Amino acid sequence: MSTGPLAAALERAERALCLSNPNPRVGCVLVAPDGREIGSGHTQQAGGPHAEVMALRDAQARGESTAGATAYVTLEPCSHHGRTPPCCDALIAAQVARVVVATTDPNPRVAGQGLQRLRAAGLAVELLPGDHPIARGSRELNIGFFSRMVRGRPWVRMKMAASLDGITALPNGQSQWITGEAAREDGHRWRARACAVLTGAGTVLEDNPRLDARLPGLLRQPHLAVIDSRLDTPPTARLFEPPHGGLPRQRWFFHADPAAARAAALRERGADTLPMPGANGKVDLGGALQELGRREVNELHVEAGAKLNASLLREGWVDELLVYLAPRLLGQGAGMAPFGPLERLADGVALRWLDTLPVGIDLRLRARLEGRDAFLMDR
Amino acid sequence: MSTGPLAAALERAERALCLSNPNPRVGCVLVAPDGREIGSGHTQQAGGPHAEVMALRDAQARGESTAGATAYVTLEPCSHHGRTPPCCDALIAAQVARVVVATTDPNPRVAGQGLQRLRAAGLAVELLPGDHPIARGSRELNIGFFSRMVRGRPWVRMKMAASLDGITALPNGQSQWITGEAAREDGHRWRARACAVLTGAGTVLEDNPRLDARLPGLLRQPHLAVIDSRLDTPPTARLFEPPHGGLPRQRWFFHADPAAARAAALRERGADTLPMPGANGKVDLGGALQELGRREVNELHVEAGAKLNASLLREGWVDELLVYLAPRLLGQGAGMAPFGPLERLADGVALRWLDTLPVGIDLRLRARLEGRDAFLMDR
Repeated sequence: MSTGPLAAALERAERALCLSNPNPRVGCVLVAPDGREIGSGHTQQAGGPHAEVMALRDAQARGESTAGATAYVTLEPCSHHGRTPPCCDALIAAQVARVVVATTDPNPRVAGQGLQRLRAAGLAVELLPGDHPIARGSRELNIGFFSRMVRGRPWVRMKMAASLDGITALPNGQSQWITGEAAREDGHRWRARACAVLTGAGTVLEDNPRLDARLPGLLRQPHLAVIDSRLDTPPTARLFEPPHGGLPRQRWFFHADPAAARAAALRERGADTLPMPGANGKVDLGGALQELGRREVNELHVEAGAKLNASLLREGWVDELLVYLAPRLLGQGAGMAPFGPLERLADGVALRWLDTLPVGIDLRLRARLEGRDAFLMDR
Repeated sequence: MSTGPLAAALERAERALCLSNPNPRVGCVLVAPDGREIGSGHTQQAGGPHAEVMALRDAQARGESTAGATAYVTLEPCSHHGRTPPCCDALIAAQVARVVVATTDPNPRVAGQGLQRLRAAGLAVELLPGDHPIARGSRELNIGFFSRMVRGRPWVRMKMAASLDGITALPNGQSQWITGEAAREDGHRWRARACAVLTGAGTVLEDNPRLDARLPGLLRQPHLAVIDSRLDTPPTARLFEPPHGGLPRQRWFFHADPAAARAAALRERGADTLPMPGANGKVDLGGALQELGRREVNELHVEAGAKLNASLLREGWVDELLVYLAPRLLGQGAGMAPFGPLERLADGVALRWLDTLPVGIDLRLRARLEGRDAFLMDR
């Protein structure tokens, strides 16, 4: 089986980044019986057409017949009525003869039923082996979607910025602009691809950030989740400002005190206040992540202060780190995530490096918590 | 002018690493008038032949005539009687017609006189422009030699190992084996290329290290310099053990107290005790570095504890960082070099990244202190 068109479909799928959330990033390429590519497409914004339909429309617009064609799709076509009709039906109606699929859909409402439905309709169906690079690539691209479907919670990516010696703020508190302009822009790209950004009330009160993605051409902004035990966020906070991009932005405040005084004022600003009491007057972080999963958050981008970072790491909720190291030594100050103190080095959080990249004057390091992506690997 | 043979000569020069100290790493390639390479060589151990003589001997051994040949040399041939006779004379005697030189020797006893001497003898002499990649490469390879000649002190490379969050030891003091086997072996290669390793009495007392380079095939070991204000090092310390490799190892103890009780005992172990009193009962670090320069230390490899690291950085004596980051978060503990506290982020030590490399499970980051290598660039 030729996987060239499937590699092309995976490239198409990447164009759904920052666009299709919370739907998976999928690409489709249609090839005529004579071997010509006659159409291609990728998932559009939620409620819009999926990759298969976009590719069929593309072929139609080019005046090509899809009868007898092969569809190369990076994820199993859907078989259920969600926001749109099933893609399986569209492929069958278009008289496609053969479907080559990179990986099955982990959505329990699909999970192999898409392939069955196609086969039942007489189409030839081929599925890549689970360890094929394109199959892996398709799952990697949708790590958050797979996480939500398989684990019921988002893929949690924590962003941190520090000096080479791991310092995020001087002893006197000074911390703004540790990293440079290019690193901040790169950070905004990671925000943009996430379904939601998570922060804590401390960061809101200290820095009053908007936590939106300031990049040209974005249709949607990540939603916003705030861990705010006592609902200390003032209704005048900048995070209530309308974000760039046209789609509405949800704002979720997780709190521990069911009688928090500001709940009504925050709801008046359009926010949801979600009681999620945990131990010691704190928010139950695991419960908050489950709730974000229910609210269709695939990738959760954490930009928080040292305390919330430490709690998330201590409790084991972090899956991946996105670290920008500034070319600077600062000597003393606040650490990146001061959990612990540990008694043994072996008790540290074990990581696996993903990649390193110079970003402007800074260095970007990506790492994954050991074993966390197992659910992606062994499918 | 063809620089192909000069690039080959630079490759030869790299073979002098860990061998020629404190002499510069130089390579030479001889090309016959018909364009054939007829000999090549690199600097041998101190007191042994230089690259030019090795290349001439190589040609002779191959039965080739050097009359009319071109010598490509990565550093200006020496014109003075040092431990060996001048290489200029050897080239002249061998009837070499032309010499192509990558960069001039910063040694004030050479400094252009080598080129003059060759020209005076009727040889054609060509010198690469200062910003040519091979000229830069030759100086980079000899950054310590250039530092000693130009600045009168060694090139100071500080090695550190930490977790991703910049922690070198847990609050309870546990610190051994933060990084893995491959990183330690890589660290030994950096020790091996240095003329000397510098450490502090604290590290000697706590870890009792040998601080030699445990690698196969080494002829020489780096000398050892210890900053030991009160001469606390016991004469039984492991650093007195005979190192691997055949050449003798110098051990220099810089102290602040001229009447330190252990001086005689350390000298009996073959060490030099060098009084270098500074402020507050501490060793004058700048004075110690000048003395190491006088003792022909080109590259100084620092493996010390947080205190000495902090002092060297605070006083501005560090030129380069060699940092191994373990794939681990430790949360809280001792920092890499706790100088400061600083008042402003802009007061931090500014760096420029050199390169990053996965080494086993760890990540190696090299960085240079901003502006420190200017003496190499603008020649």
